[in-house]
Amino acid sequence: MPDKHRVVILGGGFGGLNAAQALNQAPVDVTVVDRRNFHLFQPLLYQVATGALSPGEIAAPIRGVLGGQKNTRVLLGEAVDIDPKARQVQLKDGTSVSYDSLIVATGSQSSYFGHDEWSEWAPPLKSVEDATMVRHRILLAFETAERVPDPAERAKWLTFVIVGGGPTGVELAGALGEIAHHTLLHEFRSIRPEDAKIIVVDGSERLLSTYPADLSQKAERQLASLGVTTYLGRMVTCVDANGISAKTKTGEVEHIQAHTVIWAAGVAISEFGRQLAKRTGVETVRHGLLKVNPNLTLPGYPDIFVIGDLAYVTDDKGKPLPGVAQVAMQGGSYVARVIEKRVEGTSDFKPFRYFDKGELAVIGRGAAVAKVFGAHLSGFIAWLVWLFIHLLYIVEFQSRVLVAVEWGFLYLTWNRGARLITGQAASDSIAATTEAADKVRAAMRS
Amino acid sequence: MPDKHRVVILGGGFGGLNAAQALNQAPVDVTVVDRRNFHLFQPLLYQVATGALSPGEIAAPIRGVLGGQKNTRVLLGEAVDIDPKARQVQLKDGTSVSYDSLIVATGSQSSYFGHDEWSEWAPPLKSVEDATMVRHRILLAFETAERVPDPAERAKWLTFVIVGGGPTGVELAGALGEIAHHTLLHEFRSIRPEDAKIIVVDGSERLLSTYPADLSQKAERQLASLGVTTYLGRMVTCVDANGISAKTKTGEVEHIQAHTVIWAAGVAISEFGRQLAKRTGVETVRHGLLKVNPNLTLPGYPDIFVIGDLAYVTDDKGKPLPGVAQVAMQGGSYVARVIEKRVEGTSDFKPFRYFDKGELAVIGRGAAVAKVFGAHLSGFIAWLVWLFIHLLYIVEFQSRVLVAVEWGFLYLTWNRGARLITGQAASDSIAATTEAADKVRAAMRS
Repeated sequence: MPDKHRVVILGGGFGGLNAAQALNQAPVDVTVVDRRNFHLFQPLLYQVATGALSPGEIAAPIRGVLGGQKNTRVLLGEAVDIDPKARQVQLKDGTSVSYDSLIVATGSQSSYFGHDEWSEWAPPLKSVEDATMVRHRILLAFETAERVPDPAERAKWLTFVIVGGGPTGVELAGALGEIAHHTLLHEFRSIRPEDAKIIVVDGSERLLSTYPADLSQKAERQLASLGVTTYLGRMVTCVDANGISAKTKTGEVEHIQAHTVIWAAGVAISEFGRQLAKRTGVETVRHGLLKVNPNLTLPGYPDIFVIGDLAYVTDDKGKPLPGVAQVAMQGGSYVARVIEKRVEGTSDFKPFRYFDKGELAVIGRGAAVAKVFGAHLSGFIAWLVWLFIHLLYIVEFQSRVLVAVEWGFLYLTWNRGARLITGQAASDSIAATTEAADKVRAAMRS
Repeated sequence: MPDKHRVVILGGGFGGLNAAQALNQAPVDVTVVDRRNFHLFQPLLYQVATGALSPGEIAAPIRGVLGGQKNTRVLLGEAVDIDPKARQVQLKDGTSVSYDSLIVATGSQSSYFGHDEWSEWAPPLKSVEDATMVRHRILLAFETAERVPDPAERAKWLTFVIVGGGPTGVELAGALGEIAHHTLLHEFRSIRPEDAKIIVVDGSERLLSTYPADLSQKAERQLASLGVTTYLGRMVTCVDANGISAKTKTGEVEHIQAHTVIWAAGVAISEFGRQLAKRTGVETVRHGLLKVNPNLTLPGYPDIFVIGDLAYVTDDKGKPLPGVAQVAMQGGSYVARVIEKRVEGTSDFKPFRYFDKGELAVIGRGAAVAKVFGAHLSGFIAWLVWLFIHLLYIVEFQSRVLVAVEWGFLYLTWNRGARLITGQAASDSIAATTEAADKVRAAMRS
């Protein structure tokens, strides 16, 4: 018996996991390589950052998910380089993996548009660690405000700036609005959490710029009812310990004084994606996306498939597909079928076609916007659709039940069950933040 | 109207929280000071360390719990010193809090018997950060074993040593046994997780030395059925990257080769407890416990109450009370009543008497030992009692439901829903651990 066709999948996100699962019954050997031991339900990461969910509730151990799949092994490792001629992927620990077909699904990372130094003051929201760090900062800001006697300083601790008005920024802002107006109500004695200022800053002229315009307006109105201010048409020019500066279209520069800034803006492709582009010389577009063939292979490399946030694919009208879970998942299933057909000996297969089920963003309890199968929804009905869809796509049944319970309590009591300041004793953090702010102020005075 | 009697409670653990809640209706001003923003259900921390529960599920935000209590404020801060004459507690950030009555409930910390350097190789299990760190090490050990080709090295990655045969050590060992024999089954391709060696080392002649002897034996037998070995009458003399050395009663020194060691042994009083003893000059016994009056006040300081793990209190037969949640909780309620009576003008109140409801330790699914109201139970019935009691004492109803769901799935599927390797990409950790082990080996050879 000849050796089986070796499929190597880089990345255990929505794309990679779906590809692996779709190859369950195929006569191939599958190896899934990921840096982490768990699949993360990224669209709900902002709920970890706002204390509604625990990381474990939106993460599924990849081994657990694929454990019963006999043709599949899971490798904990980070792909750092590729030799497309030798059909080998190099891992960070010096070992390498050989493939007959390679599925690259290593996704995207945050980008600070060349200002990586901003990340110190404006953490991103990409990993579990990012989310617990953001949670730490948000909760600690209220705690510090409670302790700081100076009104100006207190106001800065109660101002939250979110850079980026896409789905993550909008959902994060909505959750912050709920925290200030509902969850923390009556919990403090010196401050009124509902006095918090929550500001979303974005360069485009409307929120959720990839959504239909009417939904953008509705999202803005729903956010406003939770006390969220929207600063549109502003490019952020500086982020530091005291807040941000932003430039309007007319060139005016505005400052927003705030001690808490969260980065929900720019996106860049993964490091491995960049390395792949370099080694294969394929054309890249926008923020480095790899231009792929209609069957999601790299031009000139029929054995390398690129799916998800990494690939530049357009729909029938030439509009590029968004970097969302749906696109990655459908890409994963599609390439699994292409590989299966090839192994069977049928090499011609129809090109990838994305079936757009819609787009959804939740703002708060009973508030959301959705475009579902072409229909524009908002408010309570959109919120129900959002709930249903998100519960449906959580990988593990167990997590689905846990998330449902957390949401049930959130709905009934506004309580966010996972409001933990971790990483360092909260009291030490207060001392540290107050001290850091003192230093910055001292430096500015001198 | 004169100012209200000021009660300051240091620590939001079982003792402090119970005291605060018992003062709900009292005509006093209550201030609860804690380093963390959450109350932690410590007896279940080992379940976080073994991936069964998420930290958020066993933590309750102190503000959330006490938010509705109008006479109470919560202060995020760490008490570092006290001036008992001026009735003032100094916090780490330089501020101070004045009291009329002080309740000290700052609890205990881990002790390495003067060998703090061991903590690098044998992390303790006291905080949420400790638990996620231990979880990281346990899961990563299996992942590393899967990658390491050398059989001897692989065996060391598959050996887990738990130092300490008290309730935490026993419960941790049982959970590890279940992970190896059930949870991880079929998830690896190069190793068999059930080959893992789990060893509990303790200085005394039996496990759970504070329990009745028949229950100790039953616990040992139940652990053995999960593949856990028990090394009793051994004092640990060394811990490093390669494992531990232990001395038997006859003076023989044994080495256990292992890359994962967890510290569930020694206990010491909190830093503030030590400072309090110094400032008041009260007598301390055993590992620094403060000897208190029958009404839990410090001798010579009728306005300072000490409760929980910090206090040395004996029962009718002169036997010291154990450092468990029940003792702390009952102490908290008791001193709340004493203070309330005093404020009312009745200063004589009956001495504190601990009502011993029993002791419980769980070993695995359907396996536990319990002494409940004098009866000795083991096996399934003890397990049911354990489940019921633990769910009952979880502070938030929401957490209770979440924990029940997690346990339901654990029971039905052996799945542990929170198996996340966090803190650093797992692949980096593998590289780091392998490298560190290489270095140690190289150093030993030279």
